[in-house]
Amino acid sequence: MPDIIIKNGYILNDTKQKDIVIENGIISEIVDKSLKSADTVIDAKGCRILPGLVNTHTHAAMSLFRGYADDLHLKEWLENYMWPIESHLTEKDVYAGTNLAILEMIKTGTTCFSDMYFNMDSTAKAVEESGIRAALSYGMIELWDKSKGDSELKSGTQFINKWDGKANGRITCFYGPHAPNTCSKEFLSKVKDEAIKNDKGIHIHVLETESELNQMKEMHGKCSINMLDEIGFFEPTVIAAHCVWISDGDIKILKQNEVTVSHNPISNMKLASGISPIPKLLENGVNVSIGTDGCASNNNLNMFEEMKFAALLHKVNSMNSTVLPAKTVFDMATINGANALSVNSGKIKIGANADIILIDMKKPNFTPMYDIYSHAVYSANGSEVKTTIVDGKVLMDDYKVLCMDEYSVMEDAIKVSERLVSSVSVEK
Amino acid sequence: MPDIIIKNGYILNDTKQKDIVIENGIISEIVDKSLKSADTVIDAKGCRILPGLVNTHTHAAMSLFRGYADDLHLKEWLENYMWPIESHLTEKDVYAGTNLAILEMIKTGTTCFSDMYFNMDSTAKAVEESGIRAALSYGMIELWDKSKGDSELKSGTQFINKWDGKANGRITCFYGPHAPNTCSKEFLSKVKDEAIKNDKGIHIHVLETESELNQMKEMHGKCSINMLDEIGFFEPTVIAAHCVWISDGDIKILKQNEVTVSHNPISNMKLASGISPIPKLLENGVNVSIGTDGCASNNNLNMFEEMKFAALLHKVNSMNSTVLPAKTVFDMATINGANALSVNSGKIKIGANADIILIDMKKPNFTPMYDIYSHAVYSANGSEVKTTIVDGKVLMDDYKVLCMDEYSVMEDAIKVSERLVSSVSVEK
Repeated sequence: MPDIIIKNGYILNDTKQKDIVIENGIISEIVDKSLKSADTVIDAKGCRILPGLVNTHTHAAMSLFRGYADDLHLKEWLENYMWPIESHLTEKDVYAGTNLAILEMIKTGTTCFSDMYFNMDSTAKAVEESGIRAALSYGMIELWDKSKGDSELKSGTQFINKWDGKANGRITCFYGPHAPNTCSKEFLSKVKDEAIKNDKGIHIHVLETESELNQMKEMHGKCSINMLDEIGFFEPTVIAAHCVWISDGDIKILKQNEVTVSHNPISNMKLASGISPIPKLLENGVNVSIGTDGCASNNNLNMFEEMKFAALLHKVNSMNSTVLPAKTVFDMATINGANALSVNSGKIKIGANADIILIDMKKPNFTPMYDIYSHAVYSANGSEVKTTIVDGKVLMDDYKVLCMDEYSVMEDAIKVSERLVSSVSVEK
Repeated sequence: MPDIIIKNGYILNDTKQKDIVIENGIISEIVDKSLKSADTVIDAKGCRILPGLVNTHTHAAMSLFRGYADDLHLKEWLENYMWPIESHLTEKDVYAGTNLAILEMIKTGTTCFSDMYFNMDSTAKAVEESGIRAALSYGMIELWDKSKGDSELKSGTQFINKWDGKANGRITCFYGPHAPNTCSKEFLSKVKDEAIKNDKGIHIHVLETESELNQMKEMHGKCSINMLDEIGFFEPTVIAAHCVWISDGDIKILKQNEVTVSHNPISNMKLASGISPIPKLLENGVNVSIGTDGCASNNNLNMFEEMKFAALLHKVNSMNSTVLPAKTVFDMATINGANALSVNSGKIKIGANADIILIDMKKPNFTPMYDIYSHAVYSANGSEVKTTIVDGKVLMDDYKVLCMDEYSVMEDAIKVSERLVSSVSVEK
């Protein structure tokens, strides 16, 4: 017997209703009318069925710092606010913050996220328990200290060995060297070797800020992407977050090496980091996905909002209203992200993971309805997600989150954040 | 006996709960604990109390065209999509579209909007019946046709005479000459004289596009703002929507004449019109408010989303993350808008209109909570609005819209839009 049948829904822009049959976490049939019975039958009347969104760059536990420090220069924000408060984060805090992040993601239609942070056992535990899908990387910061580098890399590998493939394959793991301006060339080279040896991908920040570009030129006489290319860093699968300060030459290197760029428009705008040349990346065939970055620089994890920012930022920046049309942006937030993470999601197809969201179309901001991609990118606010399914399990049904206790998750996060803030203020 | 008492809520960033007493549409008391009884007692436990948002530039009935035509060049969008479909709009259609718009606004916390369109009797009727507050202007397009101009101006004045001050003062009226590049200097001068004579304000599009700037230079040898200044157009209260292509000299003129600029970042980005120099306008003391523009270029009426776009667009455009901090943007979307429309709203103060929204803080994206302005601008998606009060009447209570039948409003809009689209396709 199938696990789930979704009945009476329209898939994306379809004009005819279909039934979707889910077995063992996989979409096994898409038919006009299924006569099978299932453990769970979901009536999708009034809904459109979309693939779940894939957030390819975040720091989930930073949900605890949502709204803690805004409207500051990047350096002040980092050094006077983020680093001091992060220094107090315990494993339990990361667990509480990640649960809060997962709750928000499930409610706004994200079914898979790629995370880089520390105390990652807590993140993995929250992913395992909640039922969401995630690609996790322990963020390694070497800071030109060889012994710190060795120990970071050891932790990175240990984390991968412990968690990769766990939770019925919902958890995959990446190496997470922080950035080319916080790690030495030698360390990055070692990480790359280790990734090749263990057949794992790499998740890294690249050229988020102009200051990284300047530092790289000073240290290496070349930009981050040229330096990384020189050491063969792009041989494994690489997700490069931000890529704001990249040149045409860099774009060629990214394309040749099939690197995915995770575009984070809201964070880049909020921190005034700059504007990544996304239309050029797309023209050159680079795989571009979308990320929210952490809540401290966003301040939410709402991929619907992120899609709208992506679509509109590049229209005004190029003074061309035809760039990044809705369908392109929707693909960036779904299939491109899934491909980047090597997960078989981001699409409603037979054989794909049953990572699916039901969108309630009976909403004023979805009325009338001409095109679902337009509505998803330009009209949605994320609150139209009625049901969220990951790996064939219903995590939210008819707006009710089933996989965690929503109010305890929020209460726990509030307690933790109060303790963190008071710890920081004692120091000041 | 008071009409409403709101109990146990926190006003904005207050650390102590207050009770708000509402009598005859006005906030009459704000006290620690009111011992009075009232017709309606609202328990604001778990909520923050904010002034309703003020949307200073929209075309409400264009909600019918939400998602009908996206990702096109402005000229193609206007000439091949908007004008053909608008040519079929009847009074009933504008009523249906405006109801849909009002429904969306009430649900996302907008309590007052400034509208410019045609068939405005229908708009006024929808405003009167629903209970929302609005500043309405009949959009006059003269196109250098003197007799058309005379008849348009007559219609504009008739509309004002019929509706200004109606619905317990919730409706106020403005003159609505469309734009300096769709009306002659002589016509605009007449409109200004009429506005002065009748002591009314003017709502106009100004320098939305570079093409307007070029046309103005060709026709008048100067830009729109210089031409308007020359004819004394700014003597009455003026709300100038967009102001994208303005110079430093224009900013001085706007300031000297106390013109309000209605900033519409999403529309300007989506149509690739350009970026209005908002930080400079603010530095120079110009009153800047926020508008969503119509749904055809947005594609929603969500002022929370619009605030975030406003805040972030100017940070990245100026490469300065400290410009347009959250509180400034919140003020633009509330008190600045109210001041522009000469309504005593946009604030929670004794004597002000009871235009109030209750925000449900028990939401993952509002957890934890450090600062309400930050959450309203950066974390909200608009779906956290639990209760909406306008002019001392509860239009939505605990997420339930009381002033209109939500499903019939959506059904009506769907029927109208289907008819409109089929009328257009018959022509093609």
